Order: sequence, then C-alpha cells, then structure tokens
Amino acid sequence: MSKTVLVSRKEHFNAAHKLYNPKWDNEKNMAVFGPCANENWHGHNFDLIVTIKGPIDVNTGFVVDLKALSDLIKTTIINQLDHKNLNLDVDFMKDKMASCENIVIGIWEILAAKISELNPEAALYKVVLHETRNNHVEYLGSNPS
Amino acid sequence: MSKTVLVSRKEHFNAAHKLYNPKWDNEKNMAVFGPCANENWHGHNFDLIVTIKGPIDVNTGFVVDLKALSDLIKTTIINQLDHKNLNLDVDFMKDKMASCENIVIGIWEILAAKISELNPEAALYKVVLHETRNNHVEYLGSNPS
Amino acid sequence: MSKTVLVSRKEHFNAAHKLYNPKWDNEKNMAVFGPCANENWHGHNFDLIVTIKGPIDVNTGFVVDLKALSDLIKTTIINQLDHKNLNLDVDFMKDKMASCENIVIGIWEILAAKISELNPEAALYKVVLHETRNNHVEYLGSNPS
Amino acid sequence: MSKTVLVSRKEHFNAAHKLYNPKWDNEKNMAVFGPCANENWHGHNFDLIVTIKGPIDVNTGFVVDLKALSDLIKTTIINQLDHKNLNLDVDFMKDKMASCENIVIGIWEILAAKISELNPEAALYKVVLHETRNNHVEYLGSNPS
Amino acid sequence: MSKTVLVSRKEHFNAAHKLYNPKWDNEKNMAVFGPCANENWHGHNFDLIVTIKGPIDVNTGFVVDLKALSDLIKTTIINQLDHKNLNLDVDFMKDKMASCENIVIGIWEILAAKISELNPEAALYKVVLHETRNNHVEYLGSNPS
Amino acid sequence: MSKTVLVSRKEHFNAAHKLYNPKWDNEKNMAVFGPCANENWHGHNFDLIVTIKGPIDVNTGFVVDLKALSDLIKTTIINQLDHKNLNLDVDFMKDKMASCENIVIGIWEILAAKISELNPEAALYKVVLHETRNNHVEYLGSNPS
Repeated sequence: MSKTVLVSRKEHFNAAHKLYNPKWDNEKNMAVFGPCANENWHGHNFDLIVTIKGPIDVNTGFVVDLKALSDLIKTTIINQLDHKNLNLDVDFMKDKMASCENIVIGIWEILAAKISELNPEAALYKVVLHETRNNHVEYLGSNPS
Repeated sequence: MSKTVLVSRKEHFNAAHKLYNPKWDNEKNMAVFGPCANENWHGHNFDLIVTIKGPIDVNTGFVVDLKALSDLIKTTIINQLDHKNLNLDVDFMKDKMASCENIVIGIWEILAAKISELNPEAALYKVVLHETRNNHVEYLGSNPS
Repeated sequence: MSKTVLVSRKEHFNAAHKLYNPKWDNEKNMAVFGPCANENWHGHNFDLIVTIKGPIDVNTGFVVDLKALSDLIKTTIINQLDHKNLNLDVDFMKDKMASCENIVIGIWEILAAKISELNPEAALYKVVLHETRNNHVEYLGSNPS
Repeated sequence: MSKTVLVSRKEHFNAAHKLYNPKWDNEKNMAVFGPCANENWHGHNFDLIVTIKGPIDVNTGFVVDLKALSDLIKTTIINQLDHKNLNLDVDFMKDKMASCENIVIGIWEILAAKISELNPEAALYKVVLHETRNNHVEYLGSNPS
Repeated sequence: MSKTVLVSRKEHFNAAHKLYNPKWDNEKNMAVFGPCANENWHGHNFDLIVTIKGPIDVNTGFVVDLKALSDLIKTTIINQLDHKNLNLDVDFMKDKMASCENIVIGIWEILAAKISELNPEAALYKVVLHETRNNHVEYLGSNPS
Repeated sequence: MSKTVLVSRKEHFNAAHKLYNPKWDNEKNMAVFGPCANENWHGHNFDLIVTIKGPIDVNTGFVVDLKALSDLIKTTIINQLDHKNLNLDVDFMKDKMASCENIVIGIWEILAAKISELNPEAALYKVVLHETRNNHVEYLGSNPS
C-alpha cells in the first residue's frame, strides 16, 4: 500500500540556557534579550515533537515503530540535552546562540540521516520544539511550508 | 468571499486493541510489538481531530457548522469505535493491523465522501489521531504535506 | 544562514459573542445557530496562535523576538478583543458574522502588514484560533495548505 | 465494604458575564473591576468539577455511576448556564454578583440535595469552577478545608 | 525542620477493561453499565498521581526522592497494569469489579506499606486515578477528606 | 455572608537550578541527585498555584480580587524567581537546597503575612508548585491535610 502517513513522537528535556551574544557587551545583551540574558542562566521544560513521513508497512501497520523512534531520539538527542546547559554542555550548539531556532535545526541535522535506519522509505518531515506553553518553533528542512 | 479557511473539530473515543499479526507466531509478535501484543488487549483514550478546508458562507460565517461536523463524525465514526475493540468490533478495520496509521486512513475514507453534504465547496483536509499524549498520526490524502 | 524556520506565539483573550444573522428573523437564527444565537450572548476563552516564517538572524538566533511579537499582537489585536463583545465592540468585525472564521481573517489582515517591522525578511505564515477545547480554525492567506 | 472514596466528574459550559455592581456608578465599577465591567459583556469557557464522597457499591464497583452524575449535572446545572448570560439568564444568580464564588455556591445548593438520589450513602464533597487557565474557585460546604 | 510538605508523582498506564458483574446476566450488565460492558473490552490511558506526606530531609531538600518514588510506583504498580487487561491480568483486582474506585484502593494497599522505605517519617497521603479527561477518583485511606 | 470559599491563582516562572549539597563531594552529589546535580545547571518552567481561603465580599462577589492577588504574587515572588538561578539569585533560598519543597515553604512565608492586605478576613490556604508535568509539591502551613 503506497499511502503516505505522518507519525509523531513527543519527548521531553529540562535544560538551562541564556540568550547572550558574546560579541556584545552586557549592556547590549540586556537591551536585546532582557531577563533571558541573566548571566546566572534560567531554564525550561522543553517538549520536542519529531514527525516522520512514509508509507505503511503492511506487516506491522506502522510507518516506523514509535518505540524505536523514541529510542533513537533519546539516544541521539535527549541524552545530549536533558539536565544540561544548552550554552555549555551541548556539542551541536557550540558557537551558536542557544535559541530554539538553532536547537531545532541542530536536532534536524542529527536525526535526518538516521530515520532510514527505522524504515528505508521513511524520512524526517518536521521537528517542533515548545519552550514554554506560549512559544514554539518548527523546522521542516526542504519540505513545503 | 473566496478566502479559504481550515476548520477543525476534536472528538474522543475509548477503545481496546492489540498489535498482533496473525501470520506470525506469538514469539515473533512479542519480539516486534512487545507489550502492545498482550493477548488480553490493552486500550487508550483516543483524540480524533478532523480538519475541513473551504470558503466561508457569508450568511453563517462558517466553512461548515462544527455542530453538524461533530454529529457527522459521531454518527459515522465514533459510534463504530467508542467502547469497542478495534481488532474485533470495527467493520472498516477487518483484516488490517489495528494501528493508528490504518485507523486514520479508514476514517478518511469514510468521511471524505460525506463532507460535501455539509458544504458542497468544502473538502476533507486532514485527519489526526492521538493515541497517547506522546504518539499521534496524521493523514492528508492527496493534500500536500 | 538562509534556513527558514517557523516561530509561533500564543496569546489569549476572553470575549462575548453571539452567532446571529440580522437579515434573518429570530426563529431562523435559532434554527441555524441553536444556543449560539442566544440574544443575551455567551462567551469563550480564546487561544490565538500566530506563526511567522523567516530566516534566522545570526546575532540573535531569532526569526523574530517573540517578546516583540507578543507586544505587537497585544497592541494591535488583543487590546481590541479581550474582555470585549465581538459583535458590538470590535472595529474589524463590523458588519460581519462573529464567527472564528471571520475573526482569523480579520487578525491576518491586521498583522500581515506589520511583521516586516520585526524582521524585514520574515512574513506572517498562519493564524490559528481555538474557541473551545474541541473547535479551532486556521487561516494561511496564500500560503500552501 | 466501608472504605470511602472521592469520585469527580468534569463538565463544561460557555457563558457571558460582567462584573458590575448596580449600586455603584460606572466609574466606580471600572475602578474596581477594570475590563471585567465592560458593559457589553465578555465570556469564558468554564470547567466545572463536581466531587462526590461515599462508600463503594459492591455490585457495581461505583460510589455513584459517573454517567448518572454527568446527566444530573447537565440537567440541573449546565442547561441553566451553557450559552447563557450569567447576569441575565440564570435564576439562581438573580440579585447576586456574577462572580465564580457566587456561582459555585449556587451550584452546591442545587446539587447537594440531589446526590442521595444517586446513592443514599454518598454526599456532595466539593465543587470547583475554572474560569480561565489561571483562575479557579472551590466550595466544600461544611466539609473540612 | 519539622514542616510537613506533600509531594506528588504522576505515572501513566494504558489498559483494557470492562465493567461487567458476573453475577448478572448480559442484559442486566448492559442496562447498568451501557457500552462499558462491551464483552470485547474497551480501554483507557490512565494517569495515576501518588501523593506522599512528610518532613523535609535537610541534606537533600526532599520529602522523598521523586525518582525513587517513580521507580517504586513503576515496579510495584505500573508493571502490573500497563498494557494489561484489568479484569484478567492483574492479581490485586481478582474477584473485584474493574472500576477506578477498586483500582485506587488496590494501589493504596500495595504502596502504603512501602513508603517508609523511602523515608521512615513519610507516609502515603493520597492516590488519584484519572480514567478520562472528565472522570477521576481519589482515595485517602484514613486521612481527613 | 459567612460562607467560606477557596480561590486560586496560577502564575509561571522559568528558572535554572541544580540539586547539589555543598557539604558533600561531587561524587556523592552525583550518587544522590543524578543528572539533577549537573554542575552547569538545568532548568524548568514552573507553575505556581496560590490558594486563598475566606468569606465572600457582598459588594464584589470576591474573596479577594484575583487581579490584585496576581499582582501581589508577581511583585513579591515572581520578580525574584523568573529568569533567575534558584541557587544563586534568590534571597529567600540562601543556604537552602534548591528543591521544590524549600521553594514552596519560602513562598508561603512571604505571602502568608500579606494576604490580609487584600482582605482582612482572608488567609493563605495552600501553595502548590509544579516543576514538571509529573512532579509537584504542596504546602498548607498549619491547615489540615
């Protein structure tokens, strides 16, 4: 059956960060980022939603096994981010502003190459990151949006 | 007015199922599906979100009356699924794996033909099914995704 | 960096309205809109989600500063709608049915021209309005959907 | 079995109201209630949670049948409040300020006498009313709090 | 420091059940329990919240380590209930109606004896079980309610 | 009118912290607190719910004006905690473990003396702090629990 379905898995991580551009002095950082630039950090409970697109395997009824997708996200992403400092502790965020926009792109670049391990006909479709109940960002790579 | 808007209605159902491929023996089912293959079933509170696309009727301000859409979903879908066993009790799931992927396609196929009864210029756009707070699937038919 | 990201901000307002077409008599309004036509009004806690699309500013890591987007939405939209009557108190709803479909289009038309003030390379992508936990509408202008 | 359990049912209603003391002039009402005094009303999606306390019936496993409790709440409370104006349309709110505090007491007084119809050994324990995601009130009658 | 604090941990399980009294015939079960008596089962995503009461340990700042409480709940409760049939698969539910009321009492009886392993001065205070977004039950043992 | 009602207001703050006892070496901190002891901090979106108990003012229908309560919580609590480091930046947490248990007691001690400014007959009843969707703590002072 060639019908294409989107399947999504939500994972969580709790992390510290600050929004602070090291090329600017403290005053300019405070003017641009306000309390998000607090030198002693702040933090969030982040919700991460990863969406995969692909055909359904007739034998399982799955696009991909969401337990396997959960394990992949935990191994490659959550272990790097959970109970960590996004500015100091995370390899893929080195030399980047610790914004949600940069985090979702970093997550996309790690996951995009690995989804075919779960199903060779499936592909990463979207990465969404909720920072608070009111703020979230999405990255779709070259998918239409 | 020819502007196109998406309108969505959420409905709920509580159902039992298991993930079990009758072509495989019990050992292989356990290896592939883990506890989801428990022979005595398990179940979920499912959230179903149906999205319709169409122009706005000037007299009502509606694409479709969401009360009428709710009634249509209840009559054609929820009555078949709520407090039921998705493997045993549901005509449109006969001979299919009882996965969310197959359920959303089954729901799409029932609803797609009926939306024009609500508004001849409106069409089914998307069906989303949340199985747990962390897992959901979406089907858009031939709409772009 | 030219990668395009979607960023979203949720705001809230509490408002009264009724669904009532003044060209129809009371009986027809009741037949079409049911209790939503109650002459003494009813109301909702509305959730409004505004999504912006654009490239990331290297210095901030932002598509747009979501605090600035929040301020823009509050100044131009929420101040007109919160603790108001959508039929009587809102300039952009004059002579329109007070439906969510018409509200999201009205919000789009106000915001679309102002997003470039936040980032000249960013643009309004989507406006979503949740009226109840079960009903929501979306407008994407001429973006694909 | 004489163990006592609390069972709760959530229902919903959408209503308009304003906070306005007719003994005060408009200026004082605005000073005290701010935008909640808007003469043209505003409204909310209210969540109502009713909690019953009692022993378990051995034959059903229930304190009370929550479907029967739901029907009782709908018949006696929701039908009076849903898609209504709390200041104008509701008998039990006549001559009272349309605050959540007065609404929960009114609901308690209606329900308290009727719970024994569901189970003669059960009693009303608590009424909770959520007006927004941030504001809620509770009334426990003479139960300890 | 002798101040007493309540700490709570939420866990989840997905299970099948039916409400069916084997002393009654099918017709009476249908009359009493309606679709909940469907012979082929239905199911839910259950949310379980366990609350502990006790003084704060000065060295940790904890009443009990919530990670240790989570592990205890998973080992003693969730492993028995998750992806199971509450009528057929669960030792502590044998010969009882598979209602939430009976489940919370069964959970209380298992956990009450084990909390002192986490902190000898702490005790089980409350067990809450949410069966749907609208229905939940609570048991407090001999604590005041 | 002498009926007593509970009214609650929810506020939010985003903060960094770590669980780290300075009397212990790093190895013991890791053994006790696991990743929560990460030296570079982690963080959360905290939800704070403050409950007040008192009689209803006949003129307003309020126990206390929840807008005034919100302002009091923001001025005395949220301004100290939001976008801050709970170990380094908060006066009332000095020399205490940065656990939720200690935070709710600290919040209680600040607020308890100030509620009578809002209504001399009202009193602080409960402080609840949600650290994640699964973990929360409550403090009731000397109120029964």
